[in-house]
Amino acid sequence: MNDTGRRILLNCDMGESFGAWRMGDDVHSMPLVDQANLACGFHAGDPLTMRRAVELAVRHGVSIGAHPAYPDLSGFGRRSLACSAEEVHAMVLYQIGALDAFCRSLGTQVAYVKPHGALYNDLVGDDELLRAVLDACAAYRKGLPLMVLALADNGRELELADEADVPLLFEAFADRAYLPDGRLAPRRLGGAVHHDPQRIIEQALAIARGEAFPDYDGNPLRLTADSLCVHGDNPQSLAVLRRLRAALDSL
Amino acid sequence: MNDTGRRILLNCDMGESFGAWRMGDDVHSMPLVDQANLACGFHAGDPLTMRRAVELAVRHGVSIGAHPAYPDLSGFGRRSLACSAEEVHAMVLYQIGALDAFCRSLGTQVAYVKPHGALYNDLVGDDELLRAVLDACAAYRKGLPLMVLALADNGRELELADEADVPLLFEAFADRAYLPDGRLAPRRLGGAVHHDPQRIIEQALAIARGEAFPDYDGNPLRLTADSLCVHGDNPQSLAVLRRLRAALDSL
Amino acid sequence: MNDTGRRILLNCDMGESFGAWRMGDDVHSMPLVDQANLACGFHAGDPLTMRRAVELAVRHGVSIGAHPAYPDLSGFGRRSLACSAEEVHAMVLYQIGALDAFCRSLGTQVAYVKPHGALYNDLVGDDELLRAVLDACAAYRKGLPLMVLALADNGRELELADEADVPLLFEAFADRAYLPDGRLAPRRLGGAVHHDPQRIIEQALAIARGEAFPDYDGNPLRLTADSLCVHGDNPQSLAVLRRLRAALDSL
Amino acid sequence: MNDTGRRILLNCDMGESFGAWRMGDDVHSMPLVDQANLACGFHAGDPLTMRRAVELAVRHGVSIGAHPAYPDLSGFGRRSLACSAEEVHAMVLYQIGALDAFCRSLGTQVAYVKPHGALYNDLVGDDELLRAVLDACAAYRKGLPLMVLALADNGRELELADEADVPLLFEAFADRAYLPDGRLAPRRLGGAVHHDPQRIIEQALAIARGEAFPDYDGNPLRLTADSLCVHGDNPQSLAVLRRLRAALDSL
Repeated sequence: MNDTGRRILLNCDMGESFGAWRMGDDVHSMPLVDQANLACGFHAGDPLTMRRAVELAVRHGVSIGAHPAYPDLSGFGRRSLACSAEEVHAMVLYQIGALDAFCRSLGTQVAYVKPHGALYNDLVGDDELLRAVLDACAAYRKGLPLMVLALADNGRELELADEADVPLLFEAFADRAYLPDGRLAPRRLGGAVHHDPQRIIEQALAIARGEAFPDYDGNPLRLTADSLCVHGDNPQSLAVLRRLRAALDSL
Repeated sequence: MNDTGRRILLNCDMGESFGAWRMGDDVHSMPLVDQANLACGFHAGDPLTMRRAVELAVRHGVSIGAHPAYPDLSGFGRRSLACSAEEVHAMVLYQIGALDAFCRSLGTQVAYVKPHGALYNDLVGDDELLRAVLDACAAYRKGLPLMVLALADNGRELELADEADVPLLFEAFADRAYLPDGRLAPRRLGGAVHHDPQRIIEQALAIARGEAFPDYDGNPLRLTADSLCVHGDNPQSLAVLRRLRAALDSL
Repeated sequence: MNDTGRRILLNCDMGESFGAWRMGDDVHSMPLVDQANLACGFHAGDPLTMRRAVELAVRHGVSIGAHPAYPDLSGFGRRSLACSAEEVHAMVLYQIGALDAFCRSLGTQVAYVKPHGALYNDLVGDDELLRAVLDACAAYRKGLPLMVLALADNGRELELADEADVPLLFEAFADRAYLPDGRLAPRRLGGAVHHDPQRIIEQALAIARGEAFPDYDGNPLRLTADSLCVHGDNPQSLAVLRRLRAALDSL
Repeated sequence: MNDTGRRILLNCDMGESFGAWRMGDDVHSMPLVDQANLACGFHAGDPLTMRRAVELAVRHGVSIGAHPAYPDLSGFGRRSLACSAEEVHAMVLYQIGALDAFCRSLGTQVAYVKPHGALYNDLVGDDELLRAVLDACAAYRKGLPLMVLALADNGRELELADEADVPLLFEAFADRAYLPDGRLAPRRLGGAVHHDPQRIIEQALAIARGEAFPDYDGNPLRLTADSLCVHGDNPQSLAVLRRLRAALDSL
């Protein structure tokens, strides 16, 4: 259990196929996670893909998060798009509603919102953009939580979320190296991504217990997180995910 | 008042701008109608356009209908796309939810669904497609009505709607010539569209009163309709719309 | 060698990835074919994917065909879209030019045009649509050939192609069952697709030699074809493709 | 005549309709300009719109420029998209080729390339991006010119263009206020856009003659330009365009 006394959860990006193109291995990873961040059509996820992903999540009792993105299919939502706050507010609201339609049709509802890719990254340090996304959450449903990156100090995010009356969920990464302030080490740096399963499990367990773990420079970093972001799109990552699931279940 | 004892309503396609492109004159036509069919992003209507259209409708107390379409921006949803029933079901559900997000954020909700363009036309006589759309309405919210074309005999539509437990709204056109069975005379036929305001008003009043009016061949046709589809996108059509509104209000 | 004294060629749909989504195994199938039909952005193939596919084809000395489609990413161009002939003419011209830009940048050029998916199928029996595509080929470059389905009788296609002054290339399928008139047996019919490698090789060799082979009903059918459409997107189809290549090379 | 002894030209963004949406007044502005920057489908301009715009330009003997943009229909290409240089190179090449297909079909060819909106702005000061666009021009056709913003000092642009062996065309604006270095005063500043026709004509004539004119702070600025960017999408701008055309013709 983490600082808040709750068990840490596992979340995974899913529903990222599009039309004839397949991505990920939702069928095998869904049973292993607690939260599924489902694409909403702007970076991936045509309507039929969304419906099937929601059905799969419901079948496994997995909590469903909206995973809204910039409108950029050819870039998979990974490229920053210089939108106004007003545009971002509207596009996030649109995508939450679209996904929630499938949830409603199966008797459930969108449980949280986790922005995708470049939109997720652009929120860090941009108050106006973060406010736009927070307001979209609040506008959609009172109490709908937003998932953001757990930093060494999330004071600013908490302040803005309080103003908007939106609960925050903090997520951390077991397979990424961290800068001292809790931001992710950029992928272009050597060693930014952990590939050793043992190291991934150790970092996950440290975060789950609220303990410090080594940052990119080897100094101790402590993050308070509600959820760990995991991947399950290939046999290797699935194997790590299974070990991680088992390790956390035995805490 | 029509056969059902209710006053006939006026509905209009709106929110059909997209990004930098403007279409229609929602600001001037919104105060004159009862129901606004709002584009949901697939044939028109980016998220910001949708939000503004919903705000305008709410300000004028106009009922909001989802106006889902085939995914065809360059064809404005006017070209049939050979989708499976499963695909249509999912894309309609998606679009209803997306629009409803803006409605919810303003304390209202999507009041009905009216398919757009080619999707609207393709429903006539295609049981499988109609079932897919009916099921999407029912799946989204119990009691959410579907608006379809009023025919001389809507027996089949009513049967399928009953099976799906979806209320139907029937719409008629004051400015279109009709075939004997109540389908619209194809636009390629001369005289398929009425341009004479007097004729339009007369056909509207006849339909509003549940009286017969001349079909394309001059024979009497009687339609039972809940709503008349009107246009307000240019000064001429706005002028006709104002006269129509006044004529119906004085019934 | 076939009737025309030329060796039959192998063509394959390629360049069908899109952004982050992968499709096909172009790297392994490219060395085995003579002609690569490359997606042009409307059903698949973002610009960077196109450039890489053209580079790969050039490296292996493979002839490059434009593979234009209806604008339908989410349907992969497999759904008929009711476009006007004028729209089809323009969209085919657009896609040929876009692909040719990458060819020109590498010192080569689009060698032929093969419409994709629903557009390919819609040409059969629709003179107006076929004329639109033929005219687009002629408008782009005098002598640019169009690849169409080899039928038992291609008289009508040849007539229209003569009028437009466009050479035709006829393609046949080694892994599909045929109706008596040379159209493909619809996929919904049992046995419409051959899975037995031996059967595929035999049908390919018969077509390559200009000999008859059994149609869907078991009656002899003879097709005159310039090229066989093959697949190489998975280990099984690659294995068949290798055998086919070897069998044709030993003719 | 300007410094180079050539008369200054007038260029205008055109072909910016999309499907059912109209933008601009190409029919009335085409006869008044020398160069038409035609949208290529990524920010505006579906294939049929492109064909018609090319036909109109050809009819009036107007030089045709490709006007490539980031893939962003809903943002009209006005929002920066963080693409890699490799992606930009490929998307520019794609769009040039697509437009050139229509030019070729009418016996002409793309005469120059002028990036649109955010892509145009992003080139200023970004060597890697500028190189990507220059290389795309050179890759498409030896000698194909790129049109960029005339600055007080275009040394860096000229250097990179020389390396890529691409001729540059410099454009200036008659209706925009300038910063001292020749960049445009941002639109959010008061007075960034000139609305007084007399002022616009005067700035145009000064640039045409190679004379200095007052920058945003009132200090003299001299720009060497080949072409002036003009607008003709409404009655007012058309009136100014007519006066400008007459003033330049009488130089």
